[in-house]
Amino acid sequence: MIVLGKEQIEELMDCNMMMDQIEECYRIFRAGTYYMPPRPVIEHDNKTLIYMPCYTEEIIGTKMLTMFPENAKLGLPSIDGLVILNDQKTGAPLAVLDGQSVTAWRTGAVGGTAIRHLADKDAHTVGIIGAGTQGFYQALYACAAREIRQVSVYNHSGRDLTEYLERLKKAIDNPGVKVVQCKTAEELVRQSEIICTATPSTEPVLPDDKELLKGKCIIAIGSYTPKMREIPDAIWDMADRVYIELPYACEESGDLSQPLADGKLTKDRIVLMSDYLASDEREESGNGKTTYFKSVGMGLFDVCIAQKILEIAKER
Amino acid sequence: MIVLGKEQIEELMDCNMMMDQIEECYRIFRAGTYYMPPRPVIEHDNKTLIYMPCYTEEIIGTKMLTMFPENAKLGLPSIDGLVILNDQKTGAPLAVLDGQSVTAWRTGAVGGTAIRHLADKDAHTVGIIGAGTQGFYQALYACAAREIRQVSVYNHSGRDLTEYLERLKKAIDNPGVKVVQCKTAEELVRQSEIICTATPSTEPVLPDDKELLKGKCIIAIGSYTPKMREIPDAIWDMADRVYIELPYACEESGDLSQPLADGKLTKDRIVLMSDYLASDEREESGNGKTTYFKSVGMGLFDVCIAQKILEIAKER
Repeated sequence: MIVLGKEQIEELMDCNMMMDQIEECYRIFRAGTYYMPPRPVIEHDNKTLIYMPCYTEEIIGTKMLTMFPENAKLGLPSIDGLVILNDQKTGAPLAVLDGQSVTAWRTGAVGGTAIRHLADKDAHTVGIIGAGTQGFYQALYACAAREIRQVSVYNHSGRDLTEYLERLKKAIDNPGVKVVQCKTAEELVRQSEIICTATPSTEPVLPDDKELLKGKCIIAIGSYTPKMREIPDAIWDMADRVYIELPYACEESGDLSQPLADGKLTKDRIVLMSDYLASDEREESGNGKTTYFKSVGMGLFDVCIAQKILEIAKER
Repeated sequence: MIVLGKEQIEELMDCNMMMDQIEECYRIFRAGTYYMPPRPVIEHDNKTLIYMPCYTEEIIGTKMLTMFPENAKLGLPSIDGLVILNDQKTGAPLAVLDGQSVTAWRTGAVGGTAIRHLADKDAHTVGIIGAGTQGFYQALYACAAREIRQVSVYNHSGRDLTEYLERLKKAIDNPGVKVVQCKTAEELVRQSEIICTATPSTEPVLPDDKELLKGKCIIAIGSYTPKMREIPDAIWDMADRVYIELPYACEESGDLSQPLADGKLTKDRIVLMSDYLASDEREESGNGKTTYFKSVGMGLFDVCIAQKILEIAKER
């Protein structure tokens, strides 16, 4: 059995290979050649274990998450976990991977894949709202998906981001990319063609101003409960459609469930990314066209990304 | 995170420490200071994943089993797995252990603990029915629990056990212990004071003869479904009680559910091992007294045994 920790995964990472793998996931999802049952959730004493199994034709995997909200008091992330891969034929354990790394790399790859297919080919600026781990990886993937010259970062707390920006600049590892901090979300939106929101906010983090959102490519990855919401209603005047990964997102994310309940969004404007990728149709942001992708993630992504990381590890 | 594979676990093993830990489990079980929810089971394409979570006051663990019956055709065990240990406070993954090893050592330890408390102090002979992995470990634990001079092994298939017996002799590592093969179960019962059954049989594997069973200490670990059965009805004429780990065994094992349904066994004769250990009462086999323990296992044992193995690994 192979064990891949944070640092090993970090060394093996290749954004373009990961985005290719996400595209493969969308093909698998569309073909229906996978089995992803409801996630068993075990809770005791405010300590939650979540098992996220997924079978594909090539592998069986389980992302096992721990959600310990009390960790915040200890200054630790509340979510931790592992991804376990089993042989598709025999069930034998093949690998155990650090769950935080797999999650960060797959969430980034899902956002990156959306940028690949929805952002203006000539977009050179990206704005990240929420200076956390997910925002960090969104920035890396944006730089892989487009020829980015400026990454802007905004965090609502106003905390000092010097170390974060330096770490991000080092990870991007391209002297042609400027990394700057914005004082307001409005400032960030004005100077970014691609905007990634990666916050746990319950109130929209973008200005509710359709003129400001016009022509942008918006990638929203933060909201994963009905109460969480990052994107303002103005989006519905600008983007004809919202691209999502799986129908369940409409219930799970407040970015969709709230406007659906209010009648601001109708289901005919919701498109599965897997269907869009399989079609000949292409739409890109820019020249007034606004595009919008909302991600909530799914076990299929985790398992396929972990499988790809294992493959790369074996090759090296 | 610490990873412990088969060979490492083999090197760390200490039967007496494991039996002490099983006694600790019975104390935890009786005090109720644990949380062991129903096991989530996921099945697809005859490939089953079973998650067995358990929280104690010291640790959180999940035994994750794969059950792939088609493996038999490949000459592979159909059950494989891992035990994952998480920090009780933060949920952080602490260790991943080979599941087959943990299962073998804990099942052996549960049977061994029953021998410790139910077998004649002067018992020097043990018989193993079913020359598989579980029988192997039952023999090792019997030798740790009592001063054994002869281990007899019987397997219904009549296959050549030379290699098995040699491996067992080597593992027992005591020149004072003879390891022999029996041609029939009857022969084995006649020459053994302690009898361990470790088969997947659906028909009793011991002779249905109360005179033969008289005075023996019987440890049945094979039957874990209502259709499986190892122990004949004659036992109910000889043993006043059957000791079990948890009430669920009465539904899960044919050794209990069948005689309960037939009226041959009544619930007042079923005693929890945890209650027996906590009481002052002691009964031992020998001098005509027959004792009977039926094991089906539980996640609490796996998690506590894995925790103890991790402790030993850290000390060394």
